[in-house]
Amino acid sequence: MSVLKLEEYRQQIRTELDRVVDFWLKHSHDTEYGGFFTCIGRDGKVYDELKYVWLQGRQVWMYCRLYRTMERFRRPEILEAAKAGGAFLRNSGGSGGSGGDSWKCAFCLTRDGKAVKVQRTIFSECFYVLALDELSRVTGDVDMQAEAEQMLQQLVHWVRVDPSGLGRLRLPGDVPTSSMAVPMMLLCLVQQLMEGRGQEAEQRHGELGAWCVQQILQHVQRGGKAVLENVSAEGAELPGCQGRLQNPGHALEAGWFLLQYAAQRGDGELQRTAVDTFMELPYQQGWDQEHGGLFYFLDVDGHCPTQLEWSMKLWWPHCEALISFLMAYRRTGNPLLLHRFAQIFQYTFSHFSDAEHGEWFGYLTREGKVALDFKGGPFKGFFHVPRCLHMCELILDELLAGEGR
Amino acid sequence: MSVLKLEEYRQQIRTELDRVVDFWLKHSHDTEYGGFFTCIGRDGKVYDELKYVWLQGRQVWMYCRLYRTMERFRRPEILEAAKAGGAFLRNSGGSGGSGGDSWKCAFCLTRDGKAVKVQRTIFSECFYVLALDELSRVTGDVDMQAEAEQMLQQLVHWVRVDPSGLGRLRLPGDVPTSSMAVPMMLLCLVQQLMEGRGQEAEQRHGELGAWCVQQILQHVQRGGKAVLENVSAEGAELPGCQGRLQNPGHALEAGWFLLQYAAQRGDGELQRTAVDTFMELPYQQGWDQEHGGLFYFLDVDGHCPTQLEWSMKLWWPHCEALISFLMAYRRTGNPLLLHRFAQIFQYTFSHFSDAEHGEWFGYLTREGKVALDFKGGPFKGFFHVPRCLHMCELILDELLAGEGR
Repeated sequence: MSVLKLEEYRQQIRTELDRVVDFWLKHSHDTEYGGFFTCIGRDGKVYDELKYVWLQGRQVWMYCRLYRTMERFRRPEILEAAKAGGAFLRNSGGSGGSGGDSWKCAFCLTRDGKAVKVQRTIFSECFYVLALDELSRVTGDVDMQAEAEQMLQQLVHWVRVDPSGLGRLRLPGDVPTSSMAVPMMLLCLVQQLMEGRGQEAEQRHGELGAWCVQQILQHVQRGGKAVLENVSAEGAELPGCQGRLQNPGHALEAGWFLLQYAAQRGDGELQRTAVDTFMELPYQQGWDQEHGGLFYFLDVDGHCPTQLEWSMKLWWPHCEALISFLMAYRRTGNPLLLHRFAQIFQYTFSHFSDAEHGEWFGYLTREGKVALDFKGGPFKGFFHVPRCLHMCELILDELLAGEGR
Repeated sequence: MSVLKLEEYRQQIRTELDRVVDFWLKHSHDTEYGGFFTCIGRDGKVYDELKYVWLQGRQVWMYCRLYRTMERFRRPEILEAAKAGGAFLRNSGGSGGSGGDSWKCAFCLTRDGKAVKVQRTIFSECFYVLALDELSRVTGDVDMQAEAEQMLQQLVHWVRVDPSGLGRLRLPGDVPTSSMAVPMMLLCLVQQLMEGRGQEAEQRHGELGAWCVQQILQHVQRGGKAVLENVSAEGAELPGCQGRLQNPGHALEAGWFLLQYAAQRGDGELQRTAVDTFMELPYQQGWDQEHGGLFYFLDVDGHCPTQLEWSMKLWWPHCEALISFLMAYRRTGNPLLLHRFAQIFQYTFSHFSDAEHGEWFGYLTREGKVALDFKGGPFKGFFHVPRCLHMCELILDELLAGEGR
């Protein structure tokens, strides 16, 4: 593929990122209570004022990341919104907000920050860490950074030592399982907290990073021919639907997490596994040959998944696939990987992007028609789309600058 | 519509009911542990051995109901399977099975009956009551009947006095709401426990029945122009998506619950409300003019619902609509209602019924294509389809026998 084509991708991605940022700057800020509205209709109108904590944390992180790493986003309004979001999060979503265990965060808040729902998982807390660490890098607030580090320790305690603080009942038939989301999320936090902090951070978090990678690799099953979403705590295949579940977009996201980790350590074997098993394999199994796009869920034995949305095409797996294949091309120079990127780019930009009102639709039918037309909802905020565009733009910058692998 | 046409419906329904019963008799029985497999593929193969308690209770109830009320199902194999299902339920799903509060039932069990998951709602317990009462009517087991009555008292305590035994956190932003499912379910239990038991049962449960009806009617909002799934505890509209949610199939099911209640008491006003507001209105709002079939969820203000499956066509709303309109026709003689029945019958039998392997598909795309091809899953068992066919056959018997309203 020519340099000209790469240049063209960069231009399209750059323009799209600007439009997406504008959409959220214009429609999502709650100037009265701080934080962000995330239930935003096709044209930008807020259709529900509830505030979802995952999405509050993600938006703070994304604003700060853009502010810190891209010249054109170093704008006061972005920094101010991120600070207000961080303050809202600390006051209500964070430690103590749920009224129970002092470290447990809420999942969903009223507009003015009262807890509506608490999940018995670790993800609200993970995005809390992500937000606080990135915000502290922009503001230089050392207390905030320390809080992010402490929260990570709490997360590790829940995951590796004692989950009882999460509030889940221990039931006789509930075998301990490993969901790929947990080590992926923790690896993401390790990468966040270690970035640019050298040997001292490596000493503090290196063991956890290695553990996360080993846990993720346990999800490679059936002699390397499948990535399964759930395995036993010992890394064996589980019976039934839960054990057979595949989530191609999730595997692809794990792919670039692993590739990044491998690149930092010069680990060629892990790089090969990341590309072959966590990118090419989920693409082969997850791409809909009939209508295009990546399936949301599959059953490794070809049974029909029980998730009603299994055949829908969601925005985020396509975002993750774009990052994965472009990063893999940048690392390996293998033109097949750029070809995959091009194919996914074509589907994604022609199906998800809304030319009329900006931002992306999130949910298409199997056939590629818009099934839900809002731009933001309980699980879709300012995160996967801008992270994908931001990362792809930076990778294309490197490729076009001719930087070595 | 001619008597001949009604005769034709009865014949089709009768044949379909026989096929559906045969499917579950053949494929769902766990002869080793008792109880029923409910995750059953298109052709009858079990694809997951987990046992969902709602579906265990519903299958016991349905088998006993068929055994007790239809001559051709008074077969030993049906009674034996129901007894084995009841024993499995009492040993594992029921009181004490969850290991916690002695009355809380599990939601999901391993094949051999160990609790996997417990919901913080009342529905497992409701289907437990339904199963035990109906089974006790067939077997004459008075202890079992007493247990059903006691469990109902526990349910009433959780719903009307103190929900803390359900295990839900009380959160500052979580306003008490009334979900229509709760009074509907309790009304269903009241009807079950009162059936044929005269004045004494009326004295015991009459007040609860009236309370349920009043609670259901609170969901009529906007000057009678909408049935909303969730309202405040005081019966006011709630803000946001939760408050605007409509579930046409659920409203239609409430319709025949109310109609039956009204008929028993000769309450003409309630009968009119049941037909006009809980049948005709949800039909008008919920029928997809473009592709046919009933939408699963709608937003009363026309926003896009946040449920990914909102536009899918599910089997059970169509089952409930068939019961509602046929019962309403039987009660009123209004030919428009028989016309509605005919239209829904046409869509339902041509889209959901599987001519090749028997039983019905559960989940279609908006356009009416099969989206998930299994016959049983975590929420689809031996219940809505046979209950619909069973009730419609009995109503058609009455209509064809020329019985008065």
